[in-house]
Amino acid sequence: MDYSIRAANVEDCKDIARMILELSEHEKVSEQVKVTQRDLEQDGFSKNPFFHGIVAEVPEQHKTKDGHTKIGYALYYYSYSSWSGRAVYMEDLYVMPEFRGKGIGKALMSKVAQLGLAAGCNQLNFTVLDWNKQSLDFYFSQGSVDITASMGYHCMRCEGEALEHLAQP
Amino acid sequence: MDYSIRAANVEDCKDIARMILELSEHEKVSEQVKVTQRDLEQDGFSKNPFFHGIVAEVPEQHKTKDGHTKIGYALYYYSYSSWSGRAVYMEDLYVMPEFRGKGIGKALMSKVAQLGLAAGCNQLNFTVLDWNKQSLDFYFSQGSVDITASMGYHCMRCEGEALEHLAQP
Repeated sequence: MDYSIRAANVEDCKDIARMILELSEHEKVSEQVKVTQRDLEQDGFSKNPFFHGIVAEVPEQHKTKDGHTKIGYALYYYSYSSWSGRAVYMEDLYVMPEFRGKGIGKALMSKVAQLGLAAGCNQLNFTVLDWNKQSLDFYFSQGSVDITASMGYHCMRCEGEALEHLAQP
Repeated sequence: MDYSIRAANVEDCKDIARMILELSEHEKVSEQVKVTQRDLEQDGFSKNPFFHGIVAEVPEQHKTKDGHTKIGYALYYYSYSSWSGRAVYMEDLYVMPEFRGKGIGKALMSKVAQLGLAAGCNQLNFTVLDWNKQSLDFYFSQGSVDITASMGYHCMRCEGEALEHLAQP
């Protein structure tokens, strides 16, 4: 199937917001999604953006029954490892279920890797939920390593009242 | 003990590079540290920096036997959650062993939280090694949650030849 991958622009935020919700439903956490189309527009497409995006698009003749032609996306941002330097973090990678198995997810991830290498990054980092065997298998097949399993890294988070409290001098 | 916390500047990179190495020795991975003072200068203090830093400093009369007055640091960068929006990621938090137990680590982390909240961030994220019970206890005492344990997030990485291969179209 024909598809193209390109940098996201502000007009893509409606579709990205839709797909973020679809992804969160797959991950069984849709009630946790607070991000709106407007947030994405502001946070990703103003000066000093908090993230960058790419989208996968199919031609009109392959649009979904709901009329969507934007059928996958990845969000990423540049980060840093104090050991190995510049890194790129892939926040999300998503392809709509009916378009899977065609290499589109691989192509999106490959594009993030290309962009990262072009910016001098030495690592592509991301997280995956441990029950998501399909995603894990895909990432392993691309040569990714589970550094939680192999090195003992745990993801930690401080938010809400705890974060407010922590910030008090 | 008197100490101050301030934004890092390019002149701090020598001490930050020294403390990154000290931290990596504590984490038993010093052979993995490739980042140099020069890398930090370029990556953190030019246009579009990959990270920001803060340092903790003590007055001359409390300097170490090796003459150091910069005795702690944190590196952080802004990131993004497609569920909850703007976030800040704390890459490193370090206080030299002889200055621990005085609230300096807490003050550094608090400063990162303040900066994050001021930038509209809803989360402070970081990783910790699962054998590092002392750090884990400290982070838990600040209201942080281990989302690897509670939600099953695993940290994944693609680097080196695998990253080069992935980037090939």
